[in-house]
Amino acid sequence: MSHSFAVLEKPRLVNGLDVDAAVATIAAIKADKNLARFEFRASNTWINGGENRSVIRDFYGAGREDTSRSEAFAFTNGEPPVLLGNNEGANPVEFLLHALAGCVTTTFVLHAMARGIAIRELSTELAGDIDLQGLLGLDDSVAAGYEQIRIKMHVTADCPDAELDDLLAYAQHHSPVCNTVCRPVPVMIERSKD
Amino acid sequence: MSHSFAVLEKPRLVNGLDVDAAVATIAAIKADKNLARFEFRASNTWINGGENRSVIRDFYGAGREDTSRSEAFAFTNGEPPVLLGNNEGANPVEFLLHALAGCVTTTFVLHAMARGIAIRELSTELAGDIDLQGLLGLDDSVAAGYEQIRIKMHVTADCPDAELDDLLAYAQHHSPVCNTVCRPVPVMIERSKD
Repeated sequence: MSHSFAVLEKPRLVNGLDVDAAVATIAAIKADKNLARFEFRASNTWINGGENRSVIRDFYGAGREDTSRSEAFAFTNGEPPVLLGNNEGANPVEFLLHALAGCVTTTFVLHAMARGIAIRELSTELAGDIDLQGLLGLDDSVAAGYEQIRIKMHVTADCPDAELDDLLAYAQHHSPVCNTVCRPVPVMIERSKD
Repeated sequence: MSHSFAVLEKPRLVNGLDVDAAVATIAAIKADKNLARFEFRASNTWINGGENRSVIRDFYGAGREDTSRSEAFAFTNGEPPVLLGNNEGANPVEFLLHALAGCVTTTFVLHAMARGIAIRELSTELAGDIDLQGLLGLDDSVAAGYEQIRIKMHVTADCPDAELDDLLAYAQHHSPVCNTVCRPVPVMIERSKD
């Protein structure tokens, strides 16, 4: 026998993702759609000026509260001097680009795995335009948010270019962050009275 | 003379923001609207599976390339085990909540400053719902992104509650990230052919 149990127990990975775990997840969701319902959360505290800090740990998904994180993640928003800060951190609109880049990338890699395509390299460059007259309330005809966001992706993989283009279009339409940006998503804000 | 130059040169701060710098910025933008045009950027590299890393440093704004950051910020996206990762970092949809929390907070604090309102404490709790059937492509009628995002803000300040409610509605409509989420924003993705 040339096989050891250690070898047999190794997960089958494509693009670093466990194929059998993915197949099991899909089967479980098809049997019970409620397992696909997730609630993600963040708590943020203002520090001073344009500086504030978020703590992220718990979420609900796959039918239960997640307990996999022994410690919380923490991230600091700041602003550069031209926006009245001291570069205490990246600013919120930059963090949005980080979220978008990561989500398009992970969605691309996930669906490449589903198609049996091995990615060799993948990187993205993002740029987004904002007219700050919107934020400042100087011109009501100017939207406060991004006017548009451009993503340039560099990717090499063991498949034809046409398949990469098809995957990219698929990732664009199935990425949760990209879909949240492209589509109007309601944000409800309530002031706690306590 | 009881004043020293040191005292005279101190910036006039409300909520940690330099009021005179803000007034000068507004005046400059009113004189030349192009100064309000900003381009923010991020570069992201896939590492493995659901792990990827963004680097954020340069941006264009106020009529020039910014040079205030001697080092880049770097942030790692990851996924929890239930989403086939190892908690290498918060995941992209969680980073989006961090961006949203920070932006609503900074917009609130900025416009409070403009109204002469001193904020004592401000914190937010965010929660957003996603049905992962969208990401997975299991049901085309399910959107891939957030269905809705809820923000609960706790704030104390030296003004009546009605003014806080007015400020909150104002911040919701003038926050760049909130506006990017609430409104459909075009995302153009192109594959680099080189």
